[in-house]
Amino acid sequence: MTLPAPTYPLSIAANQIKRSVMRDLIALASQPEIVSFAGGLPAADHLPLPEVETCLEAVLARDGRRALQYGPPYLPLREWIAGYMRQRGVRCDVENVFITNGAQQALEILGRLLLDQGEAAVVEALTFTGIAQVMDAHGARLRAAALDLATGVDPDDFEAALTRGGRARVGAVIPDFHNPAGASLTLPKRQQLAAAAARSGIPIIEDDCYSLLRYTGETLPPIKAFDEAEQVFYVSSFSKIIAPAMRLGWIVAPAPLLPKLTVLRESIDLESSQLLQRVVTEFVTRGLLRPHLGALNAANHERRDALLDALERELGSRARWAAPSGGIFVWVTLPDEVDTAALLPRAFEHKVAFIPGVNFSVEGRYTNCLRLNYSNNVPERIRLGVRRLAAALDEHCAHS
Amino acid sequence: MTLPAPTYPLSIAANQIKRSVMRDLIALASQPEIVSFAGGLPAADHLPLPEVETCLEAVLARDGRRALQYGPPYLPLREWIAGYMRQRGVRCDVENVFITNGAQQALEILGRLLLDQGEAAVVEALTFTGIAQVMDAHGARLRAAALDLATGVDPDDFEAALTRGGRARVGAVIPDFHNPAGASLTLPKRQQLAAAAARSGIPIIEDDCYSLLRYTGETLPPIKAFDEAEQVFYVSSFSKIIAPAMRLGWIVAPAPLLPKLTVLRESIDLESSQLLQRVVTEFVTRGLLRPHLGALNAANHERRDALLDALERELGSRARWAAPSGGIFVWVTLPDEVDTAALLPRAFEHKVAFIPGVNFSVEGRYTNCLRLNYSNNVPERIRLGVRRLAAALDEHCAHS
Repeated sequence: MTLPAPTYPLSIAANQIKRSVMRDLIALASQPEIVSFAGGLPAADHLPLPEVETCLEAVLARDGRRALQYGPPYLPLREWIAGYMRQRGVRCDVENVFITNGAQQALEILGRLLLDQGEAAVVEALTFTGIAQVMDAHGARLRAAALDLATGVDPDDFEAALTRGGRARVGAVIPDFHNPAGASLTLPKRQQLAAAAARSGIPIIEDDCYSLLRYTGETLPPIKAFDEAEQVFYVSSFSKIIAPAMRLGWIVAPAPLLPKLTVLRESIDLESSQLLQRVVTEFVTRGLLRPHLGALNAANHERRDALLDALERELGSRARWAAPSGGIFVWVTLPDEVDTAALLPRAFEHKVAFIPGVNFSVEGRYTNCLRLNYSNNVPERIRLGVRRLAAALDEHCAHS
Repeated sequence: MTLPAPTYPLSIAANQIKRSVMRDLIALASQPEIVSFAGGLPAADHLPLPEVETCLEAVLARDGRRALQYGPPYLPLREWIAGYMRQRGVRCDVENVFITNGAQQALEILGRLLLDQGEAAVVEALTFTGIAQVMDAHGARLRAAALDLATGVDPDDFEAALTRGGRARVGAVIPDFHNPAGASLTLPKRQQLAAAAARSGIPIIEDDCYSLLRYTGETLPPIKAFDEAEQVFYVSSFSKIIAPAMRLGWIVAPAPLLPKLTVLRESIDLESSQLLQRVVTEFVTRGLLRPHLGALNAANHERRDALLDALERELGSRARWAAPSGGIFVWVTLPDEVDTAALLPRAFEHKVAFIPGVNFSVEGRYTNCLRLNYSNNVPERIRLGVRRLAAALDEHCAHS
């Protein structure tokens, strides 16, 4: 739909912001006859429905109307998060924990805290579109730091990018099961990134929504664990580990900035739901998270294996990928001459969908790559989808 | 707490935004020994707990895991809102309805849509602090339009203010049971304001969170009902009529702007909770809203009467006020020489709290006024509070 010119001007931000190709694509791919690898949804059949029901009942029975009223950020939730962060090796107390409506709002509030129109920000060569959107919305000029598809961003290039052509205001990194690349940072890279933030004096946002979705290998401490200089803002979310409809996430920030974040939040949307904060607290303090993650990650693991086997069988000679140890995405690289944005319409004809790699690159690169989400399809659908993808690729290559 | 200077710069917006005196004050006044007229909470003892429980159970039984997943704005909720708006005399279809996290997020998104740093915006001489905060946060210079304490803003002055010293980008008006003034706009004023928006070509935000809280008199159509030119953005919320913890509100906007609002929202916090959207939908489509409002408004009515009687008895000779026909606030004017900001510490000594009038004025006026919230105290507490307020005023006047 094209907008008729309104009689009044819209803001610079409103004019700058671009319609999200990805959102449109994911909506288009949600038709039931299409096998969609396009989304980023947690496994729908593994959302913890009985557990959430139990927690809701318990909260309403115990807290009654207090759970329906306005209220301050729920202290027991902040306490649990602080304890969890300490388990991850982060020096964290309750006054470092700021509750948000999911990680996206955490990114937005940090964007508002740190960015001004025309200032620079550093992202990874491949990055989550929500990070780029927030920075765009706050008028930032984006610089990309080089990324290794197996071990994540290059810390030296990231540090150089922070000051290349003027000081950036902020950088952003995804440490585990990178969206979209699937990569996880090695331990030395985490230490180097914390050191880069300390040396440069430029803060880094660590967007860590996936680290609990590990099904093989050893969980590493986040970058924030090495952040002696308090230059790292850690962001995470309950959306992927409990349920998106809880709309809850958090920031770990320097304690002196919490009042500032609180005032910024107040004008944005006041507060998060007392009810949902208490339900999530009940969920985690009852010890429901670990068994739930066990089942969820086992399902994701099986789905990843189904995807990797199918890729090997159908595309083994024509594509490369790294096997992630967790998360919900596999990044696939096709021969240089394949333009995955051009492949997509043909894939739709074959009733399969993915996100073209270029959508995750602020430089318009990775045009021969694609992101596949495996968490929200059962193995049989995954195998069907990859067969369709291979057929679409055959046809595409035959015609171009 | 004072911030240590961070090694990195904060944004202009973060530096501009002021710590909310009101939030601090309301927190301070929440100690149980203090009778607080300071807040703006719906009656805690009338929050519809059994009804919400029933709706939650019904939603989870019927929708299961879909209620926990990501999803588009919930269509049945948008449909119900569109129908409600039509009942109010507004030409409204589902494609005009944009779901938000309460009215505050609606204001924020409209601020982001319409405002740029340094542009002007028009508010009422007394206005909701959340409106002023949003406009401040988007860098607006605020102009005030004159207000009558009984019949609301002066449409002629409002229209003049829209272009006084350069064109404003937007204006904002509260039509019913004004926060803080308690006033409701007359029908001709509503028509004149719609005409002013049409003539000037400058959009108006109508922030209507209270009109369903009427306990006497006739409900008038909103300004939006007279908005032939599609220049009015209507904002409302379920916080005061169902429960704040639902965190749901809405905007009625021109249909061509909905995609723009959607993209803005996506980078802000993606979406509202599927679970809470479905619970609120269940609540309203089961017909629970009307009986709930009946009970709630009866309680508010009784509390207002208790407050007005006590004011007459304790402060009749020294104060003036208008009796609101709904809502949750009474605005009290004391003699010109009384500075209610200076009265407040003494009131706290007497264990009663209110919000000084100056907090609602962008021009620093109304220094001899105060806002009293009556919805969240039972009549006996209200009488006690007014006695304490009168004693504090006696002491204050004796010493100054």
